[in-house]
Amino acid sequence: MSTRAERLSALLPEAGVDLLLVTNLVNVRYLTGYTGSNGLALIGPQTCVFVTDFRYVEQAAVEVDPAFDRVRAVQDLIDAIADALPPGELRLGFEDAQVTVRQHGRLRELLPERVELVAAGQLVERLRVVKEPEEVDRIRAATQLADAAFEQLLWGGLVGRTELELASVPHGALPHAQPRDVEIGRGELVVIDWGAEVDGYCSDCTRTVATSDPDASTREVYELVLQAQLAGLEAVRAGASGRAVDAVARAVIDAGGYGDHYGHGLGHGVGLEIHEGPRLSQRSEDVLESGNAVTVEPGIYLPGQFGVRIEDLVVVTDDGCEILTAVRKHLISTD
Amino acid sequence: MSTRAERLSALLPEAGVDLLLVTNLVNVRYLTGYTGSNGLALIGPQTCVFVTDFRYVEQAAVEVDPAFDRVRAVQDLIDAIADALPPGELRLGFEDAQVTVRQHGRLRELLPERVELVAAGQLVERLRVVKEPEEVDRIRAATQLADAAFEQLLWGGLVGRTELELASVPHGALPHAQPRDVEIGRGELVVIDWGAEVDGYCSDCTRTVATSDPDASTREVYELVLQAQLAGLEAVRAGASGRAVDAVARAVIDAGGYGDHYGHGLGHGVGLEIHEGPRLSQRSEDVLESGNAVTVEPGIYLPGQFGVRIEDLVVVTDDGCEILTAVRKHLISTD
Repeated sequence: MSTRAERLSALLPEAGVDLLLVTNLVNVRYLTGYTGSNGLALIGPQTCVFVTDFRYVEQAAVEVDPAFDRVRAVQDLIDAIADALPPGELRLGFEDAQVTVRQHGRLRELLPERVELVAAGQLVERLRVVKEPEEVDRIRAATQLADAAFEQLLWGGLVGRTELELASVPHGALPHAQPRDVEIGRGELVVIDWGAEVDGYCSDCTRTVATSDPDASTREVYELVLQAQLAGLEAVRAGASGRAVDAVARAVIDAGGYGDHYGHGLGHGVGLEIHEGPRLSQRSEDVLESGNAVTVEPGIYLPGQFGVRIEDLVVVTDDGCEILTAVRKHLISTD
Repeated sequence: MSTRAERLSALLPEAGVDLLLVTNLVNVRYLTGYTGSNGLALIGPQTCVFVTDFRYVEQAAVEVDPAFDRVRAVQDLIDAIADALPPGELRLGFEDAQVTVRQHGRLRELLPERVELVAAGQLVERLRVVKEPEEVDRIRAATQLADAAFEQLLWGGLVGRTELELASVPHGALPHAQPRDVEIGRGELVVIDWGAEVDGYCSDCTRTVATSDPDASTREVYELVLQAQLAGLEAVRAGASGRAVDAVARAVIDAGGYGDHYGHGLGHGVGLEIHEGPRLSQRSEDVLESGNAVTVEPGIYLPGQFGVRIEDLVVVTDDGCEILTAVRKHLISTD
């Protein structure tokens, strides 16, 4: 059994299940190494099974951890689960934040009565929040790739280019918003939110760049966001709550009088998904642990005028954090 | 009320619901025009509501069909549904192939007792299979973009390039498989499956290209797939069943003795998603209609040796089909 599957198994009793059916493909990848688009895993103290269909048998042979027994199913993998289960009465956990109502109905139809289906929450996600050193290496590499793409982007200037053009800079730099086919003019603030991916691991970064010389009030807002961001970074450490770290940065923006224009949380975890746990926000229940990779990204948005957001990606350590993002953070003014 | 919302409303009585909650974002886009990542719609004879959160209010103002009433919710949109519902007893349909078990539980918790939740299947998908002329235009444009990218790719040759390099040719050409960082050698067959996207509408195409002169048995397999593909194209017309069209192409490969090495269906619909209805396969229940956009893509895969697949995208007409893909189809041998 693989280390990750073992750690998952250890969580099962507490969740009240004997076995977990893992259908979220990101979680399947995390546990098995499989990167295809149709596969599932069954994990328990005595069970470590991977199921895919004929199209992915060769890929699975290369990718899937040898600790897993492999089962080849017809295309609809749910059909194959019943055969792969151990005998006897069984509480089978499923990922209720991922399994659809229809899939659940089919599972109930296809599984024997001895199997009880139990909503098991997000157990694999709980493992994923703490990154292993190899995972941090990949996130760091993705961050470096994205950093380099940003410098390349600025090199070309912004004025007269469209958002669509900027969105196709090399190395897969992708803004989160839908880029518009509109030329960027002088005297604008451009919020650039981009990332890269290395071996499935994401990076996430935002900078706000001015075209032509920004006026004093724009500089003031930028400076306030920067102070909030630096305060947030200062507050990140193992043991701090996501709520407390959020509050530190939020207090800076509140004190500056822009609290009403900062409508989102301070940050989120990053890994195999761009947005995962833990959360830094007013409603977060998370407590930071060493090995979390999280963003710190306060922002101020003045509708119809401009927005500013500054985002770094950091890895939480026992006494603070390692800031992965190396892109300069003072207000850059370019043409 | 918009035309699409009206057509959807007309399907509701048959599905036994008064109102449909649309949460699948592709369906939300189809109905409202909204392209953001958090939004839902409520559609019924007297109801045409779009809900999003503060981050997307400006985007929605630009994108969403004016026929929709807009509601701004907190980030979790489920909270806002109860307030947006009409009064009285109500059978509220939900998209059970998309709503998760957890979301369903929260809906049940948050909605008043007068609201009965009813699994409504894929009603919007039923509308989406028949493309309007404007939708066909976008699919045609995406196909032309992808065709051009292919010629550009071949221009650069294949030998000595890696799959990863090929996967980053311009215009968003994306293979479906995970490209490997392995150089392509001489004497190989390369299955290239790519597409482009225009205004959210996809194209899909596959060609199989040889590096250096392929031997006689390779040519024979290629020729067989090509004959099957041409026969499949011949069989496409409004009124033909997805099963019958699949059978025509499959019979050619069976007769050639390679039936065991053709493990997938003949084709699938293409539109806002790369894979949607109708299906051309042995188990399809679909009957083709004028305005369907479907792929015709038989293949033969000899494990450890090579694979061949040839795929065109076509629009179904009353007496046949319009083939959108214009890329040459004879066996291309390049370096």
